[in-house]
Amino acid sequence: PQGRRALHAASAVLQEVMLTSERYRVQRLPFSPVSDSDVAFFERIMPGRVITSPEDLKPFNVDWLKSVRGCSKVMLKPQTTAEVSQVLRYCYERNLAVNPQGGNTGLVGGSVPVFDEIILSTALMNQIISFDKVSGILVCQAGCILERLNEYLEEQEFIMPLDLGAKGSCHIGGNVATNAGGLRLLRYGSLRGTVLGLEVVLADGSTLDCLASLRKDNTGYDLKQLFIGSEGTLGFITAVSILCPQKPKAVNLAFLGCQSFAKVLETFTTCRAMLGEILSAYEFMDEKCMQLVEKHLKLSNPVTDSPFYVLIETSGSNSTHDEEKLNNFLAQSMTSGLVTDGTVATDDKKIKAMWSLRERITEALTHEGYVYKYDISLPVGKLYDLVTDMRARLGHSAKNIVGYGHLGDGNLHLNITAESYSHSLLDAIEPFVYEWTAKYNGSISAEHGLGFKKKQFIQYSKPSEAIFLMKRFKAMLDPKGILNPYKTLPSS
Amino acid sequence: PQGRRALHAASAVLQEVMLTSERYRVQRLPFSPVSDSDVAFFERIMPGRVITSPEDLKPFNVDWLKSVRGCSKVMLKPQTTAEVSQVLRYCYERNLAVNPQGGNTGLVGGSVPVFDEIILSTALMNQIISFDKVSGILVCQAGCILERLNEYLEEQEFIMPLDLGAKGSCHIGGNVATNAGGLRLLRYGSLRGTVLGLEVVLADGSTLDCLASLRKDNTGYDLKQLFIGSEGTLGFITAVSILCPQKPKAVNLAFLGCQSFAKVLETFTTCRAMLGEILSAYEFMDEKCMQLVEKHLKLSNPVTDSPFYVLIETSGSNSTHDEEKLNNFLAQSMTSGLVTDGTVATDDKKIKAMWSLRERITEALTHEGYVYKYDISLPVGKLYDLVTDMRARLGHSAKNIVGYGHLGDGNLHLNITAESYSHSLLDAIEPFVYEWTAKYNGSISAEHGLGFKKKQFIQYSKPSEAIFLMKRFKAMLDPKGILNPYKTLPSS
Repeated sequence: PQGRRALHAASAVLQEVMLTSERYRVQRLPFSPVSDSDVAFFERIMPGRVITSPEDLKPFNVDWLKSVRGCSKVMLKPQTTAEVSQVLRYCYERNLAVNPQGGNTGLVGGSVPVFDEIILSTALMNQIISFDKVSGILVCQAGCILERLNEYLEEQEFIMPLDLGAKGSCHIGGNVATNAGGLRLLRYGSLRGTVLGLEVVLADGSTLDCLASLRKDNTGYDLKQLFIGSEGTLGFITAVSILCPQKPKAVNLAFLGCQSFAKVLETFTTCRAMLGEILSAYEFMDEKCMQLVEKHLKLSNPVTDSPFYVLIETSGSNSTHDEEKLNNFLAQSMTSGLVTDGTVATDDKKIKAMWSLRERITEALTHEGYVYKYDISLPVGKLYDLVTDMRARLGHSAKNIVGYGHLGDGNLHLNITAESYSHSLLDAIEPFVYEWTAKYNGSISAEHGLGFKKKQFIQYSKPSEAIFLMKRFKAMLDPKGILNPYKTLPSS
Repeated sequence: PQGRRALHAASAVLQEVMLTSERYRVQRLPFSPVSDSDVAFFERIMPGRVITSPEDLKPFNVDWLKSVRGCSKVMLKPQTTAEVSQVLRYCYERNLAVNPQGGNTGLVGGSVPVFDEIILSTALMNQIISFDKVSGILVCQAGCILERLNEYLEEQEFIMPLDLGAKGSCHIGGNVATNAGGLRLLRYGSLRGTVLGLEVVLADGSTLDCLASLRKDNTGYDLKQLFIGSEGTLGFITAVSILCPQKPKAVNLAFLGCQSFAKVLETFTTCRAMLGEILSAYEFMDEKCMQLVEKHLKLSNPVTDSPFYVLIETSGSNSTHDEEKLNNFLAQSMTSGLVTDGTVATDDKKIKAMWSLRERITEALTHEGYVYKYDISLPVGKLYDLVTDMRARLGHSAKNIVGYGHLGDGNLHLNITAESYSHSLLDAIEPFVYEWTAKYNGSISAEHGLGFKKKQFIQYSKPSEAIFLMKRFKAMLDPKGILNPYKTLPSS
């Protein structure tokens, strides 16, 4: 019954999603509306892969959080780069706006239309092109699902260099387009280092082939970097070349309870020194996160109630050495009182279950109603002060104010929930949260991007000269502005 | 006497360096010549830091390899970003060409003028701005010498994420401008991942402040990436923010002899599996390299003569574990016949001496006369075939044909020496070497960049659409083309 209630609540929320254009009072730009002859053209070039039924379109018009909704009348599902090129050349000619879409798991409203943009989906672009076992370089189409890629690689003793909660649905092209961070960044670095090549179709339909499979290549400007993190506004990514690390022979997880955030920080310093090169994740969450995960998802907390929890992962090549390092670290942090309780997992099943406690927080939060999500980079010592200050500021006007995230990367996920969306609560949060972040030279979007919901706040993290230059790049690469309009760059 | 002879030879070479414009028959572009009133202006804004004496200018007009020479009449040594901005604003107005220069250690003629460009040096911009011990983020001016930065960090138990033979003279700004790779890339990744922020002065003198000190920041397009590897043609880098790894507690070096290149490759696969996360370098060199290092630099070979040598470095947090891993690997490779002889170093002095064998090959080669240098990325299995094919092709027309490099990154340094420069030998090498590389989808410049000497060959590694787009970026950011003209992009 609990499961069904949750399901019912979720579908009720779906009914209620306001049109983005109404909630945010946006003006449609003068793109051409999609005509019957446009649909007929698309049907000719990709028969059976043009979706126009309102019912079928519904889930692709609404974001995963049910926070923004567009009203696109058509979704296209190309299979090849040539088809993407044909579509964009046509749309560019006809001045039709296009919304590139991967797994639609984005959290800032970047992946769904705002008005009637054509949804250009990577759903059927899911072929692996090549994998080289010596170099670890994978080349694949943009629509490959992250988790499928990881499974494919694991069979060959490799893994993807990134991992995130949405892995079961997100597409690698979307990951690259948003410069996704996630759980392994601490160890394997950002996509700016691991993505070796991209194939991109530009707004006018021309194809840019920068799909190199080389670890090093210094021949001219690194054009692909501009598309990484540009959220589909500068080009449509059709294929990705990515450097994959070897699958670690030993993985260990520790889930620990800490009595204060200061101890969470001290534990981090200690573990970085003692675990060194085998440390592959250092995540934290506050007790409220854990309560929500227990309540809504029926997951159980393996350690004694604590104000803070820490999840530490090690990945290494020698299980004896790794366990010795981990045990030394645990002994040290227990005896010095940094950690009050904890548990360790080494087998696959227990590791997956323990990771769920952290990965499924986002999901648990959606069961609470409307979620105001903030994804902030800060100097690590300041990370939790924002949560505390926000609690003091909002008092009882919010239902929950929780903090969790990638502590090792200085990345806080601040989430505020309420029964439903309210303008006045939003006004109490913003721009306060951005001003607070700017004061400590943080970033108002560490890994989620700006999309639709954060674009007007870019100036809290970037100077006007930089924003001006970004607009010039956009104007140069997409002079008609048809690619993912209303996203990433602030409207003037 | 040997030392003096070498010095004499080097100074003789210096006398002989032909003007680049003559050797390569280049036409000067219609920039204004530097007038007395220009010099007077510079003297006013940076008194005493305007160099005009021909004798003092000489070493800054010639590259380290003594292969290209310009005839600049003035070098400026700003200390602050504001001064760089003033200089560039003035030069832009006056249509004066500018050659940004760091430590002048580049290998493709990118760091010296071709004609009379004003040399704008980072030599006096050598201040460390900040270092955060928790995050490991260093912020410094562009003219800091790489080795000085590393020494500074080592005192605080951190290291720079890059290391290269020229570390004693190269500037971090130049490293970033050329996207330097080097000896630690295998472990810590490329500068595209580790550089977190840049401050750049654009051609018109405006300053772009993207000097963030955050590990993650997804607010808009990542503009700094465009300047990384653009060799001073898009902007002048004035400051750098970079993520530095912890200083490893244990470092071990192994120097091994292999009987064939196939065994070098198999040793790599074995060591990657057995050393895993502690592997921090895998370098190789052929026997000719070793002979030159012994002959010209009087270094001694610690292992029995072999056709190939391998240098393996481990860096880790636990010396007992690391030594155990290394010993297991060595035992395995010896008993299986992959390696015929070898030696190990764990103390600092012996480690430095052993690294010299690899790092000083470039220097040893310069003693042989004129050096034709190629810096090629290839699928690792193909790496040495290019050296073999080149030997077959050139026969006795070259003095030495040697191969060494960063095998772990698929990066070969192919070097061909002759008594002096000759057009006919060059014609026998090029474009053959580039065609060969393109056939295997390699890069004609893995880490050195294109500079002046390689720019006309970019099409072997990049499609025409990409080159066209690069030219549009250049035209947008530097419409008068005053920044490092004649470099990186091919002349039409």
